Amino acid sequence: MNPTLEIFSQGEEVVTGQTVDTNAAWLSTQAVNMGFTVTRHTAVGDKLDDLVALLREISVRADCCICTGGLGPTSDDLTAEAVGKAFDLPLEFDAVAFEQIQRFFTLRNREMPTSNRKQALFPKGAERIDNAWGTAPGFSLQAGRCWFAFVPGVPSEMRHLFKESIQARLASRFSLQPDILVTLKTVGIGESAIQERIRTVEIPTPVQLGFRAGPDEVQTKLLFPHDYPEADMTALVESVSEKLGDTVFAVDGLGQAGGDLVAVVDRLMHAGQHSLAVVETASQGLLAAKCIGLPWLLESRYRQAVVTTGQVGDLPVAAQAIAVKMRNSSGADWVLIQLYEGDQQAFHDKNQAIVLYNGLLTEDGFYQNTRSVAGPINVKQNQAALLALDLLRRHLQHKEL
Amino acid sequence: MNPTLEIFSQGEEVVTGQTVDTNAAWLSTQAVNMGFTVTRHTAVGDKLDDLVALLREISVRADCCICTGGLGPTSDDLTAEAVGKAFDLPLEFDAVAFEQIQRFFTLRNREMPTSNRKQALFPKGAERIDNAWGTAPGFSLQAGRCWFAFVPGVPSEMRHLFKESIQARLASRFSLQPDILVTLKTVGIGESAIQERIRTVEIPTPVQLGFRAGPDEVQTKLLFPHDYPEADMTALVESVSEKLGDTVFAVDGLGQAGGDLVAVVDRLMHAGQHSLAVVETASQGLLAAKCIGLPWLLESRYRQAVVTTGQVGDLPVAAQAIAVKMRNSSGADWVLIQLYEGDQQAFHDKNQAIVLYNGLLTEDGFYQNTRSVAGPINVKQNQAALLALDLLRRHLQHKEL
Repeated sequence: MNPTLEIFSQGEEVVTGQTVDTNAAWLSTQAVNMGFTVTRHTAVGDKLDDLVALLREISVRADCCICTGGLGPTSDDLTAEAVGKAFDLPLEFDAVAFEQIQRFFTLRNREMPTSNRKQALFPKGAERIDNAWGTAPGFSLQAGRCWFAFVPGVPSEMRHLFKESIQARLASRFSLQPDILVTLKTVGIGESAIQERIRTVEIPTPVQLGFRAGPDEVQTKLLFPHDYPEADMTALVESVSEKLGDTVFAVDGLGQAGGDLVAVVDRLMHAGQHSLAVVETASQGLLAAKCIGLPWLLESRYRQAVVTTGQVGDLPVAAQAIAVKMRNSSGADWVLIQLYEGDQQAFHDKNQAIVLYNGLLTEDGFYQNTRSVAGPINVKQNQAALLALDLLRRHLQHKEL
Repeated sequence: MNPTLEIFSQGEEVVTGQTVDTNAAWLSTQAVNMGFTVTRHTAVGDKLDDLVALLREISVRADCCICTGGLGPTSDDLTAEAVGKAFDLPLEFDAVAFEQIQRFFTLRNREMPTSNRKQALFPKGAERIDNAWGTAPGFSLQAGRCWFAFVPGVPSEMRHLFKESIQARLASRFSLQPDILVTLKTVGIGESAIQERIRTVEIPTPVQLGFRAGPDEVQTKLLFPHDYPEADMTALVESVSEKLGDTVFAVDGLGQAGGDLVAVVDRLMHAGQHSLAVVETASQGLLAAKCIGLPWLLESRYRQAVVTTGQVGDLPVAAQAIAVKMRNSSGADWVLIQLYEGDQQAFHDKNQAIVLYNGLLTEDGFYQNTRSVAGPINVKQNQAALLALDLLRRHLQHKEL
């Protein structure tokens, strides 16, 4: 039997629906991957009695609980107080935490408001979880049957703290036999098209097949029991991968270097010591923004006037001319250029499609792809950034082979 | 006292994190707007005992509960069975529901699988909720203190059923008096600094003060009882707004045009018929990306080489020269330029700060602001985009006054 785990989210913004609780789903995925059985998610607002009641319930029901939110400096942040009241523990001042909070402000040349002192108060017996990502440290403690970890509700801070502190504590406290999850990551192909392609691959009964479509990639997931023979696992992943062809940009879970599309492109650009300049239209800066801080991206340019309403057939000539000019002015080895067919109205209208055209100028030649995308303007924008990056990825992986 | 309402989501896909539970947030928003106090969200998997226990808990705790999921035809869809078991009600066959389910298949020229018959079984005493959008009808019933409504988990079906059937039933069953929410939106000031600034404003007891810090704005929220005198409400919002000064970029809930920072800038740029070109460094395309499809943004340029490691004191001269050049080449009326002090290492290191410098060149002159930002690189990137946009917003609002 796997140990059970619950997720507890605190905050009026969650319970009143102003915030979609993405933390709960993210934490559940992590917990399931580690070998927990997640039994319940609960969200309550910033009301002391509700918090106390819920903490007590969970302490007799679950083996483990991850709690998000309520660690801020303001009067509606009640977690430490609620834990103290629920389990009859006095709050104690933690000098190290206080120093960390002060340092956060000093670093930003700001004076620490007195209200932040509260964030250094923890229930007696709690273990501090340092937070290098924000002002609120977390804490963990055992209460009844349940080991609780309390972390901030800000998703980025929560994720960092989970990865850097909580994961290791969970692994050492619980006896976990996680299933093995292998994820094939693709871009430029939909979930149903993937299903169609792999229909003929036989999936043995103990293996669970699943799909997840996100804005930046579609994931095909194979979940293997922890004692599944490794050779059989590799063979099955290989069969699925073959059917998906070069739409697969990374495979996570087999010890290969995974990550998202940007991470894959970054590794390949770095390895090949290439540099790049980008001309953006439909992605309007988003391609460059996704590559934040990567040293091989020398320049990016968006110009509204570059948007063409011509036919896709005319685009390659125009694109090459702009790319050559951009190479000369930027000093980059390669230029990635993106144009599209379709007017501004089609771009804005979620019910109309535009045809994206991407070109990549390298020392060897000029490579291109086209693709029709539809949906709201920000979906088109994101797809445009991804498809341009994917042209670069395909070219780099092909060279590597 | 408002009646209390809970949201209950059923499904392994929710509790294991494969699906983010957007239904809970959507339903909560609807319920709060109608005048309910939402007290709890709970999600559990498809396990009969868990469902039964949770239904019983809620029936003594809340006045109302909206439940999603578990109404499908497969063996893991257990809602009706769980309700029957929890409240000791036999399941009864509903001939009208059965006919509706059959019609769904006939209409699509498909044969109805026998498993779908199950969807026409409801606990004795339940009222059917017709579903013209899918195969699963919902149902409602009173159990203990609580009035329950059960609807499918598919978001589109759930939303239709709520709007078309449940909303009217709630309005007739409960005496509802919705509160009034006013939100002051700020950028460039932290949550604790806001609290510090408004400390001297007296908030009358029936008004609830709350805060919410997101990546793009900090919200200061004032929740007024439905019968709060309008003049007093306006006066209180005015006092808070005064303390926050020009960090407030919008006020939602008083009938003024609200929205996010980009929406505010867009309205002002449009009204003034200005056009803009942007030079980005730390935001690396994100400023342009946030303004996707807005016609007044003519050009955006990111160049790695523009990043300066000089002192902030040197930046204005460099910035003005670049801005003038950009204005000439882009044809835009105004140029927004962003530089920063601090090397690449400081930019990448979450424990180091960089000093952002923004300049705005208009026909009247050159305006500027500087600000220190710290944190992970993508936080710095986002803050850089926001602070540059905010310089533009302040200038536009100032001109407007």
